[in-house]
Amino acid sequence: MRTDLALIGFGNVGRRFARLIEERRERLLGDDDLDCRIVGISTRRHGSAFDSHGLDAVQAAVIVERGESLSELGALAARPHARSFDIIGMLAVTNAPLHVMVEVTPLDISAGQPAIEHVRAALACGCHVTTANKGPAAFEYRDLRAAADAAGRSFLFEGAVMDGIPLFNLVRETLPAVKMLGFRGVVNSTTNYILSALEEGEDFEPALARMQAEGIAEADASLDLDGWDAAAKAAALANVLLDARITPHDIRRSGIGPGTAAAALAATGRGNRLRLVATARRGATPVVEPVELPPGDLLARVRGTANVLILQTDLLGEIAIAQLGGSLTETAYALVTDLVTIRRRQQALHEGLARRTL
Amino acid sequence: MRTDLALIGFGNVGRRFARLIEERRERLLGDDDLDCRIVGISTRRHGSAFDSHGLDAVQAAVIVERGESLSELGALAARPHARSFDIIGMLAVTNAPLHVMVEVTPLDISAGQPAIEHVRAALACGCHVTTANKGPAAFEYRDLRAAADAAGRSFLFEGAVMDGIPLFNLVRETLPAVKMLGFRGVVNSTTNYILSALEEGEDFEPALARMQAEGIAEADASLDLDGWDAAAKAAALANVLLDARITPHDIRRSGIGPGTAAAALAATGRGNRLRLVATARRGATPVVEPVELPPGDLLARVRGTANVLILQTDLLGEIAIAQLGGSLTETAYALVTDLVTIRRRQQALHEGLARRTL
Repeated sequence: MRTDLALIGFGNVGRRFARLIEERRERLLGDDDLDCRIVGISTRRHGSAFDSHGLDAVQAAVIVERGESLSELGALAARPHARSFDIIGMLAVTNAPLHVMVEVTPLDISAGQPAIEHVRAALACGCHVTTANKGPAAFEYRDLRAAADAAGRSFLFEGAVMDGIPLFNLVRETLPAVKMLGFRGVVNSTTNYILSALEEGEDFEPALARMQAEGIAEADASLDLDGWDAAAKAAALANVLLDARITPHDIRRSGIGPGTAAAALAATGRGNRLRLVATARRGATPVVEPVELPPGDLLARVRGTANVLILQTDLLGEIAIAQLGGSLTETAYALVTDLVTIRRRQQALHEGLARRTL
Repeated sequence: MRTDLALIGFGNVGRRFARLIEERRERLLGDDDLDCRIVGISTRRHGSAFDSHGLDAVQAAVIVERGESLSELGALAARPHARSFDIIGMLAVTNAPLHVMVEVTPLDISAGQPAIEHVRAALACGCHVTTANKGPAAFEYRDLRAAADAAGRSFLFEGAVMDGIPLFNLVRETLPAVKMLGFRGVVNSTTNYILSALEEGEDFEPALARMQAEGIAEADASLDLDGWDAAAKAAALANVLLDARITPHDIRRSGIGPGTAAAALAATGRGNRLRLVATARRGATPVVEPVELPPGDLLARVRGTANVLILQTDLLGEIAIAQLGGSLTETAYALVTDLVTIRRRQQALHEGLARRTL
């Protein structure tokens, strides 16, 4: 089925996504009858372009990477001088039977914006939404879920935690009739990379500088170091999996800093490992803090940028899923899996309608 | 949708399954429109019972646990004296729009029978099949898959590897458009439990005896110890995930024994761990053998009865999924997830038919 996509934001993730759906076009069409076409791209710095007959998104990525405006694309409608994401223009141009907003804007993580407003607007206009941002699920999951349900549309965010590793999909698609009781996880790569370096005797500042030089940590790594990123992920997980109604601000949180080196080394000396752990139980507020873990704990064993999440269930005991690699492609892929979910849901819905009308 | 189930075999897994679908009836109905009814139970020692209006399967479990015959059930048709599984009787009694054979017979693992013949017969009669046996996927995956496709029916076996931990579902449902390149895993609990004990200085025989006393290992543990169980799982994984066409007999295989104790201790002395590892790459025949692993290897960290599988993918790097617990309930649950998959596929199929006829 033809699926029109409108991309809000066209940074690294958005451009990787645009190329990925071209690279995997045949498999997506063959396996899932998903025929994607990008009809709109809206950026803050490079203008916007719309064409209900489809844009050449790979060419658009090249243009943006050259620092040029999307008006170069020769699209039906281009707004080269817009100063903000042109959400209205985006929604006007989608006209396929299945249309989806792909929300990949830079996130103000203190409030989850502008992603939350984009999700809300898209749902209000009858679009399905997939976002790589954790903000919407971390801050407004309940409201956005209700809006999506009322509109009969999907609101998905597989990339918000552990990139393309299926996590929300794992629970939703493969664990029917199972209740999640809690989770424990190492979900922030920067802090885990630094803790791994500290326990080998490296100093804090050089380890951080090396990560930044390699592009793994942001120039401003404070959101990672103070546990804020992990708290946002923990809030999203708790809201979705444990029916919590929290924001990252509710989470008791402590991070790591230069003073952590001594604790990390001391833990290693005792045969243990210090890790920044996000912990939650159903009915209790999650906690993010450095925890000294015995060597037999699976969380103690993930090193460097690897992430791991242990799900506690009522029926299957503990299940762990780990991301041992991690790259831009994974985040872009998460958006693709959300598209497949939307397509499959629509198939199920049609069958439901067919049953009702028979 | 009403779903008639015919159970071939009614041992520990079958009885736990019958109780589990009662325990989770409301969630399965509410979440997945899955309304299960057991219309046939066929055993080798306790006779068979059929009733197209549904059997009281929980009562049947109690009867079997008392050592009595299923003719006590007062079903429409009972064959108390049958000496073999009454597959014909089973298939004759199913008449719901969706009918599924639940195959949970004891397995002759050297040839995968009688499970393979049961699967074949069920598909030929228009039933979907779920089995907890690894035999069918390990020995005859390609043929059974083709038979299922030709019949427009499902052939599923989520419980064959790592019990109820979603593994085949993980790949099929949550990793669209991803190609599996290989896997590495610790997939046999008995050997892993013994190796964990050996590296703590325990002797082989007492560790094995303790496992047998706790009911974790079979009285005849040779299938586990000589790597046969792991080889059967590796064959199933390779056939399904890597498009191999092999049986467990094709796999190069070495197991563990009393002589392994010295190697396990020596590995531990070097800071490493000895594990029985199943390894496969696309295009190469899998290998099952004890491998000395460095401490940073995730496979080195699973202890006791835990299992872990690392999937190597073309798009997402390595993904690990681990089963930290493990119980009869997990195996029974795997059958439930297969029922949900069958139901969801039927929804998708109906939509496809609706599209074609519009």
